[in-house]
Amino acid sequence: MPPTIRSRRPVRSALVLFFAAAAAGAVVASAHAQGAQREGRRSRTREVKPTELTPAQVTELTRIANERKLNFDDLMAASKTFMPSGRHDEYVCFASGGQSGQVFAIGVPSMRLLRSIAVFTPESWQGYGFGVGNDVLAAGNMPSGRTIGWGDTHHPGLSETNGEYDGQFLFIGDKANARVGVIDLRDWETKQIVKNPLSVSDHGGCFVTPNTEYVVEGGQYATPLGFGYAPLAEYKKSYRGFVTFWKFDREKGRIDVAKSFALELPPYFQDLFDAGKGASEGLVFGNSFNAEMAVGGIQSGKPPFEAGCSQRDTDYLHVIDWKIAERVVASGKTEDLGGFKVIPLETSIAEGILHLAPEPKSPHGVDVSPNGQYIVVAGKLDPHVTVFGADRIRKAIADKKFSGKDDFGVPILDFDAVKEAQVELGLGPLHTQFDDQGYAYTSLFLDSAVARWTLGGEYESKHPEQPWKLVTKTPVQYNIGHLVTAEGDSSSPDGRYLISMSKWSIDRFVPTGPLLPQNFQLVDISQQGTAMPVIFDMPIGVGEPHYAQIIKADKLKSWQVYPELGWNPHTQSVDPNAPKAGKEGIVRDGRNVTINMTAVRSHYTPEHVEVNEGDHITWRITALEQTPDATHGFTIGGYNINLSLEPGEFAEIKFTADMPGVFPFYCTEFCSALHLEMLGYFLVKPSGAGKDAVGMAR
Amino acid sequence: MPPTIRSRRPVRSALVLFFAAAAAGAVVASAHAQGAQREGRRSRTREVKPTELTPAQVTELTRIANERKLNFDDLMAASKTFMPSGRHDEYVCFASGGQSGQVFAIGVPSMRLLRSIAVFTPESWQGYGFGVGNDVLAAGNMPSGRTIGWGDTHHPGLSETNGEYDGQFLFIGDKANARVGVIDLRDWETKQIVKNPLSVSDHGGCFVTPNTEYVVEGGQYATPLGFGYAPLAEYKKSYRGFVTFWKFDREKGRIDVAKSFALELPPYFQDLFDAGKGASEGLVFGNSFNAEMAVGGIQSGKPPFEAGCSQRDTDYLHVIDWKIAERVVASGKTEDLGGFKVIPLETSIAEGILHLAPEPKSPHGVDVSPNGQYIVVAGKLDPHVTVFGADRIRKAIADKKFSGKDDFGVPILDFDAVKEAQVELGLGPLHTQFDDQGYAYTSLFLDSAVARWTLGGEYESKHPEQPWKLVTKTPVQYNIGHLVTAEGDSSSPDGRYLISMSKWSIDRFVPTGPLLPQNFQLVDISQQGTAMPVIFDMPIGVGEPHYAQIIKADKLKSWQVYPELGWNPHTQSVDPNAPKAGKEGIVRDGRNVTINMTAVRSHYTPEHVEVNEGDHITWRITALEQTPDATHGFTIGGYNINLSLEPGEFAEIKFTADMPGVFPFYCTEFCSALHLEMLGYFLVKPSGAGKDAVGMAR
Repeated sequence: MPPTIRSRRPVRSALVLFFAAAAAGAVVASAHAQGAQREGRRSRTREVKPTELTPAQVTELTRIANERKLNFDDLMAASKTFMPSGRHDEYVCFASGGQSGQVFAIGVPSMRLLRSIAVFTPESWQGYGFGVGNDVLAAGNMPSGRTIGWGDTHHPGLSETNGEYDGQFLFIGDKANARVGVIDLRDWETKQIVKNPLSVSDHGGCFVTPNTEYVVEGGQYATPLGFGYAPLAEYKKSYRGFVTFWKFDREKGRIDVAKSFALELPPYFQDLFDAGKGASEGLVFGNSFNAEMAVGGIQSGKPPFEAGCSQRDTDYLHVIDWKIAERVVASGKTEDLGGFKVIPLETSIAEGILHLAPEPKSPHGVDVSPNGQYIVVAGKLDPHVTVFGADRIRKAIADKKFSGKDDFGVPILDFDAVKEAQVELGLGPLHTQFDDQGYAYTSLFLDSAVARWTLGGEYESKHPEQPWKLVTKTPVQYNIGHLVTAEGDSSSPDGRYLISMSKWSIDRFVPTGPLLPQNFQLVDISQQGTAMPVIFDMPIGVGEPHYAQIIKADKLKSWQVYPELGWNPHTQSVDPNAPKAGKEGIVRDGRNVTINMTAVRSHYTPEHVEVNEGDHITWRITALEQTPDATHGFTIGGYNINLSLEPGEFAEIKFTADMPGVFPFYCTEFCSALHLEMLGYFLVKPSGAGKDAVGMAR
Repeated sequence: MPPTIRSRRPVRSALVLFFAAAAAGAVVASAHAQGAQREGRRSRTREVKPTELTPAQVTELTRIANERKLNFDDLMAASKTFMPSGRHDEYVCFASGGQSGQVFAIGVPSMRLLRSIAVFTPESWQGYGFGVGNDVLAAGNMPSGRTIGWGDTHHPGLSETNGEYDGQFLFIGDKANARVGVIDLRDWETKQIVKNPLSVSDHGGCFVTPNTEYVVEGGQYATPLGFGYAPLAEYKKSYRGFVTFWKFDREKGRIDVAKSFALELPPYFQDLFDAGKGASEGLVFGNSFNAEMAVGGIQSGKPPFEAGCSQRDTDYLHVIDWKIAERVVASGKTEDLGGFKVIPLETSIAEGILHLAPEPKSPHGVDVSPNGQYIVVAGKLDPHVTVFGADRIRKAIADKKFSGKDDFGVPILDFDAVKEAQVELGLGPLHTQFDDQGYAYTSLFLDSAVARWTLGGEYESKHPEQPWKLVTKTPVQYNIGHLVTAEGDSSSPDGRYLISMSKWSIDRFVPTGPLLPQNFQLVDISQQGTAMPVIFDMPIGVGEPHYAQIIKADKLKSWQVYPELGWNPHTQSVDPNAPKAGKEGIVRDGRNVTINMTAVRSHYTPEHVEVNEGDHITWRITALEQTPDATHGFTIGGYNINLSLEPGEFAEIKFTADMPGVFPFYCTEFCSALHLEMLGYFLVKPSGAGKDAVGMAR
């Protein structure tokens, strides 16, 4: 066994005086940055004297406006969205990345993409899936073991306390593979992925109950639950929908699979879910389509799904009492499916967990008003939104006011008994959000518009208009899907800003080939009545976000530096294996080689790592930085390894040195003026003589 | 063999009348979108009457400014960058994504991220690496076969004609794995990845000769060429640098590896390269650091690389005559390294291909002025930029004005003979770009500033200042790396806009955890003299862009719809295997099953695909759309497959149905009001009886 190489501090020779000078320069730069940081803080809170534009300034502004062909509305929009250097946005919008498998954080009102968060897809610049995070990703593979390298992220859900976003965690679902990711908003990293044990795919939903007791994941396209096989001819008999209640352990920051459960549901295509709160706390609402139980079959002359799923005038709102469900689970009345607790459909019926209510027509949104009293459903093939009353639903259930049962015996609540209102808005209504002025906002896909309409009940006094009336529509460009307002899913929306998540941009931006960006359009909803202008168009060309939530920026208490050196982000604690400064070295134990490395501006210790072909490598690195933004990267070229080491972070990677040769490792994140010099050599000595002779080595 | 299922048009029943109505709605929406498109075109070219702000409007603007604490400079900056809805940016900035492995396209002056382009990393929302593009990615794997799933993209290079960006192709290098990607700007897709056959890693450079004859890829950290092994003790003997000239075949849109070649270089760390043009056409210039040939060794008490590489006062500018090199290659004076032509160092010396010139100190930029006369080198540990004269270099070579030879016998040009000027700018100068007013702009990393300075010679008449003088410095936030001006690398820069690619943002944006975005800062360089304000801060939180080029948007002639239905983007022609409408079906040939599918709003044909476990699947899909932005997705949940099918596109995926069960496939790109209904079922019948019984299937 070769001797362990112990780290020593480098001896600096006279020749490196210039280097020292450069290092001094770095100190200057650091001081500069700190000064600038102070200045930045000043600029964020700077006291700007009330602006009084001088005639000369008005002339100058007018000149620019004319040069750039801006009208007054443009100048107003620019003034409402521009952020001076260093000024922080007031809100952060967390949007799913759609088929990108990520989450995007966007500043509002500037509509600047602040960061992506890797969840279901490896993202090399974050070092996710290229040495670390691999275990988190692997937990999301299929039960068969098949690797899944992406996700179709749909609905992000912020953790809530008493129905308010608390800024601690973010959950995100993957429609394509029925998975849920858990992101810790202290360090914006994905800590956990759970694979749904019932279903291949879901609707990608993640909606939390008002105190984040559960993360709710609704199904979509029915299959035999538990990955079984059954022909489509047995659809009604063997295919089922579901909704999963993932128990969240806030202390551990993890979903507790053992305490989670699911409900077997009829094979309608369940879609969106929203948790009740206030008046409806304890209930969960889910819409559905394909009450027809159509199975398509265009290739054999049958109606395609798009027609078959759209035949009936109503589908079903699912009303689920999760507090009863919790008791039923506790009493053991569940089936076991691969170790997961499932409440059979007949049990849900017998115990009063599940009721249906008719809802027109092919619905694609269910949204609960801030007070929990109103459940708004938009049927995309009906020009109205339908509002259900929480009190009415509770009373209809108590009074057994049913209009019948569905094919599976689920009681159907009488529509007139539970309906609060219907409001005609326009073509293709989808989703609804709320503000602080008693308005609701619904996306109109076919109209390409956002509709503002009035709520009734306790909201009547907040707006000057009649209740349950359309107030105005603002055109958007084009084909809006979801929409989101500031804190619009919480118990106390802020109003002010709305984002139209327009799905098509067509001609809005410089064409980017046949694959065009989406268009997030910021709408100013601060004024009452009919004024509701679009004030910013933001292209989204990094995925197709599906849904978003907007939180007040000051609720986010993010770390900028890990609390202590040697921090393991996965355990959120100091790692006992984290190398310390002065204790670096290489330890060999037979074919197992452990590298204990530190990284600091701008060198790694050690710089030479020589092993033999076939050795099993455990590479541990601690980033010794404590300055915000002093991130180091670490890659071994050719070995498909890349880490992002934030200040204080510890990472451990394991691999086999199965490729002989000389592999430079270097810092992939620009860290200092001598960043390019932050490198070392990983030498893998060939085991066979024949492999040695390749190349031009002389 | 089961009968082939032939596609038939669906029979529409009375029950689907509402569906027809919905389809009519879709037509309305389409007409609406077209109307909006016309309006959009109007709005892009709309004639805005000269704005004369009324006193009431000034009051209103002032109110917003005061509410949002904006001063006059902020209002000016907002007016210079705001884009009204539908107005197109004037420029597109193509920035590398750094360790994200992508390219980002950013609109200028609005600084909106228009799109990412997947190159070295699978990107699911583009369907790249999840069914298609897999072959392109695989070509970039290591010679040992090791899969590489990411890249450290550094320097994008736009194709040029006569030294001007022509908007046809974009090249991008991967520093970590020494690869070059070729992007076709008709459809913004990566068509080719070539792996450098000499080296593990490079400097990620992609600089083209003035008519894109060659794409130049410079090395960086020396290794034994050809992936051999040699201990660091044999560094000088066995380690080498390199520069590769990839021959580009514009007609085929591909690098022609057989016609490409490389130069063996001394084991200095070559860095950036830039191609000569005009006065210097035929030459290529590359800077380097580590003329010391330091090999680090901090762990054994030796100076770390950051010190060892910084000892000497000068490193070497490499002057390479690629026209001579071309002739030498044609005459067969090359060595063969894994089938690749390499000019040995001694041949380059003997034939006059390679000369060195001293350059102070640890340089990190080499940039050729628009007329090709001046080669600007910035040594990051020297406060000056050093300007070399092309005519002087040619004369010194002709006159053999050498100050000696390096350790390898390469002649060193006399510094005073080739030096045109030195200009003191400040701390940590890195990179230089140019404008149309005779100014050069250099990034100052340690100063966190952009320096504007004057060129001499024919540029003297363009600016009012003395030549070779610092004019002004604008602070940036913080730690600028590269910078880029509009068309700033071409023979005729536009000026107007400069982007400071600031590496650290520290306090500029809402904190995004310990991993913070970079900061692209737009600088208005339209005025001469000292006015050079930062007018926009753009967070880059999707990677760490290294370098960028900015092209006039109207030079890009992108397709928005593929030219014909059934288009294969890889061959850029109609694919003979592309399924046609009415010819869909499933063909079985033993264990091989071919699915011929079409996709159109909003159904797939066929909708049912049933196979047996273990069947080999060839799945072909044609998107029958011809409307811009009418993209469909296609995923098979659980099977790690996702496609993005742009209008007219054909795709073929191959896989084995090795996982039994029922797998919904669906459209992952929101295509219509009935997008959710665009689905089908992929049924994989289990081959063993035991596998059938899992799950809750009744």
